[in-house]
Amino acid sequence: MNNTPSRAPGSRLDPYVDRYAARTAGMTASEIRALFSVASRPEVVSLAGGMPNISGLPLDVVGGAISDLVASQGPVAMQYGSGQGVPELREQITDVMRLEGIEAHPDDVVVTVGSQQAVDLVTRIFCDPGDVVICEAPSYVGALGVFKSYQCEVVHAEMDAAGLVPEALRQAIAATKAAGRTIKFLYTIPNFHNPAGVSLSAERRPEILEICRSEGILVLEDNPYGLLGFDGEPKRALRADESEGVIYLGSFSKTFAPGFRVGWALAPHSVREKLVLAQESATLCPPQFSQMAISAYLTKHDWQGQIKQFREMYRERRDAMVDALSDLMPASCRWNVPDGGFYVWMTLPPGVDAKGMLPRAVTARVAYVPGTAFFADGYGSSAMRLSYCYPTPERIREGVRRLAGVIEAELELRETFGATGPIQGLPIRGTEHPSTDTQ
Amino acid sequence: MNNTPSRAPGSRLDPYVDRYAARTAGMTASEIRALFSVASRPEVVSLAGGMPNISGLPLDVVGGAISDLVASQGPVAMQYGSGQGVPELREQITDVMRLEGIEAHPDDVVVTVGSQQAVDLVTRIFCDPGDVVICEAPSYVGALGVFKSYQCEVVHAEMDAAGLVPEALRQAIAATKAAGRTIKFLYTIPNFHNPAGVSLSAERRPEILEICRSEGILVLEDNPYGLLGFDGEPKRALRADESEGVIYLGSFSKTFAPGFRVGWALAPHSVREKLVLAQESATLCPPQFSQMAISAYLTKHDWQGQIKQFREMYRERRDAMVDALSDLMPASCRWNVPDGGFYVWMTLPPGVDAKGMLPRAVTARVAYVPGTAFFADGYGSSAMRLSYCYPTPERIREGVRRLAGVIEAELELRETFGATGPIQGLPIRGTEHPSTDTQ
Repeated sequence: MNNTPSRAPGSRLDPYVDRYAARTAGMTASEIRALFSVASRPEVVSLAGGMPNISGLPLDVVGGAISDLVASQGPVAMQYGSGQGVPELREQITDVMRLEGIEAHPDDVVVTVGSQQAVDLVTRIFCDPGDVVICEAPSYVGALGVFKSYQCEVVHAEMDAAGLVPEALRQAIAATKAAGRTIKFLYTIPNFHNPAGVSLSAERRPEILEICRSEGILVLEDNPYGLLGFDGEPKRALRADESEGVIYLGSFSKTFAPGFRVGWALAPHSVREKLVLAQESATLCPPQFSQMAISAYLTKHDWQGQIKQFREMYRERRDAMVDALSDLMPASCRWNVPDGGFYVWMTLPPGVDAKGMLPRAVTARVAYVPGTAFFADGYGSSAMRLSYCYPTPERIREGVRRLAGVIEAELELRETFGATGPIQGLPIRGTEHPSTDTQ
Repeated sequence: MNNTPSRAPGSRLDPYVDRYAARTAGMTASEIRALFSVASRPEVVSLAGGMPNISGLPLDVVGGAISDLVASQGPVAMQYGSGQGVPELREQITDVMRLEGIEAHPDDVVVTVGSQQAVDLVTRIFCDPGDVVICEAPSYVGALGVFKSYQCEVVHAEMDAAGLVPEALRQAIAATKAAGRTIKFLYTIPNFHNPAGVSLSAERRPEILEICRSEGILVLEDNPYGLLGFDGEPKRALRADESEGVIYLGSFSKTFAPGFRVGWALAPHSVREKLVLAQESATLCPPQFSQMAISAYLTKHDWQGQIKQFREMYRERRDAMVDALSDLMPASCRWNVPDGGFYVWMTLPPGVDAKGMLPRAVTARVAYVPGTAFFADGYGSSAMRLSYCYPTPERIREGVRRLAGVIEAELELRETFGATGPIQGLPIRGTEHPSTDTQ
């Protein structure tokens, strides 16, 4: 075989098609990705993305901290660093986690290139092809992509308004074990779930931990939004009550800024050693300059005050979205009212296909993410994720108005021509998540 | 099984030992890594590390460029970016590559977290467990680690003073194919090889490309040191003469600074698409702030003049090392004189084991990397890599003096008690690489 075919450069025919690793079959462009190019046009109100709104960050403080960093520690900040991450930052990360009840040693923290890379590295060290990861239904699209790329099978467990349902978790575990499959971990987002918008209730937390403990299943607790709750104190992390059975993932992407790509994993000691080796193999070390910039920001700025400002800003946008939904959406739509984070999960009347409707929504200059993106098994067709994190309250209301118009037109079509039914005849499981606390 | 054993926190017993993925068997601490903690003590002259010496960077220029970046584009630089990387930087990367004869489109460049991550992502998309990667003998330890972590088999092909030997490559391919194994690519460092210090001659370049073309083998050209040659113009990249059969990897770590973790892959169009998907799965996007900081530096500073300064500084250190080796080493040692890059490869008399000798060297306050680190097959025991990139010329000479003393003591012991022979009775292949251009 000749690997320099005479095809024109940029040809869409792929001369390497027979040579890729088997895992690439699971590496496909997500529905979110295809959307980005469309939704980024200025005339479109994007309720699709999960970009934090960082316009409130004090650029003078950040710029000053980074200038000082270059002047005083430039040759260190611009040099290679440890594969585990900068010690001072790891110390500060333990301060951040203490707000959620976690007592940890900096030596058990591994800095990662965003918490996305932490999901990647944990999966890399635990999962062989065919292993099972249990995820909430729905779950974070970026994590599902990682699990697919490692040829894992995802088994979903139901959620309701109080988060992951313990009985559903028990059933998922039992059914998977009965099928002779190996479960490597439970991937869960206990706080302000992406995309479901719900949180795991305080009552259920010990029960979920106890189930995993007794079944010998590791918990991967992904918590990027934990400090962005709108009411009261931060919720207590699962990791706060279980140090050996939980790997906790955190991030500065939503509480500070994502462009530095700094997240972390807090892991049991033996797992931490493997994560550091995996990090060294993946990148040699996470970005030293980014880590020291964040460390300087945390030292020089009232970062907790900044997070409080973010919370207030996001609460105002949450209000704008749920008020607009109440005012404008057809009565047959249902959604939840999140008490933190970035997302509302909305379900449409059975038979209205959120993915099929998307081109018409974009034509009407509004974008969202169809529910199917958040399921590994094809469910979610009549649901969608609506983000209120980035647009202004006025734009959010305008976006909801446009979306309501598209849905109403869809419902009229249905009345005229009859329901088209969900794609491929699947049950519309998405309609049921989360099933309560809706309006 | 219960995953919360009653062992004390920090216990060295690993409760997860039965649950890791099979690939973790190939993820072990490298010999270099174990060295770092020792070699970083100030009293030790480290000829072990590959850290660039960045003390010559103009901190005022870098600080000013980054301050301006925060002030003028902060909300963009601190936000999520594209999985492929910042378009303006990718444009500038094509300017950098043009110095080596490469004409490329920015759309075929994928930015990575250092070129280490590029090796990881290329391996991820091409290699199933058991696939073969052909590497030079010796080869870069960080790449060997990646290949092991993806459960690849490494087959080494011999080098000499003119780099990879075409006939050795032919033989390695033929033997691998005869054994029924699948070769996914040739991993090669054509310029100022790490660790061998040699470069692929201009005469051999078309021959190596032709062999790979006719055998249908992709070339992974890793070129972090290409612009750090001491004599004349940059060498012409393999990629300059073959666009469809070569993936080219570059990095700003040695020509600017490694702490930003910015490298790149230039790949054929179809491969590039897969690399972007892999990058999105691994990190969502490479660090936006780092990319824009480097882009600003390239725009505002005479970066080519800066590289020229680096070249002169490294040439002076190369001279210090080879002069000291000539003056101080026992006559039975052999080494090459690199014409660029960071490394000298030195072989000891047969029977002197560089790895076994290392603790005695560290006691004598000098460190190096034993040759075995650079072979996947146990060879290299009587060789070592000596780095001249980081210490001052005076420290380099002092380090060589200490090392010569250790080797002399070793030779005296051998005369007194007889040779101990290479570990495990392996042939001392390392002694033969590279075999000419030595003093």
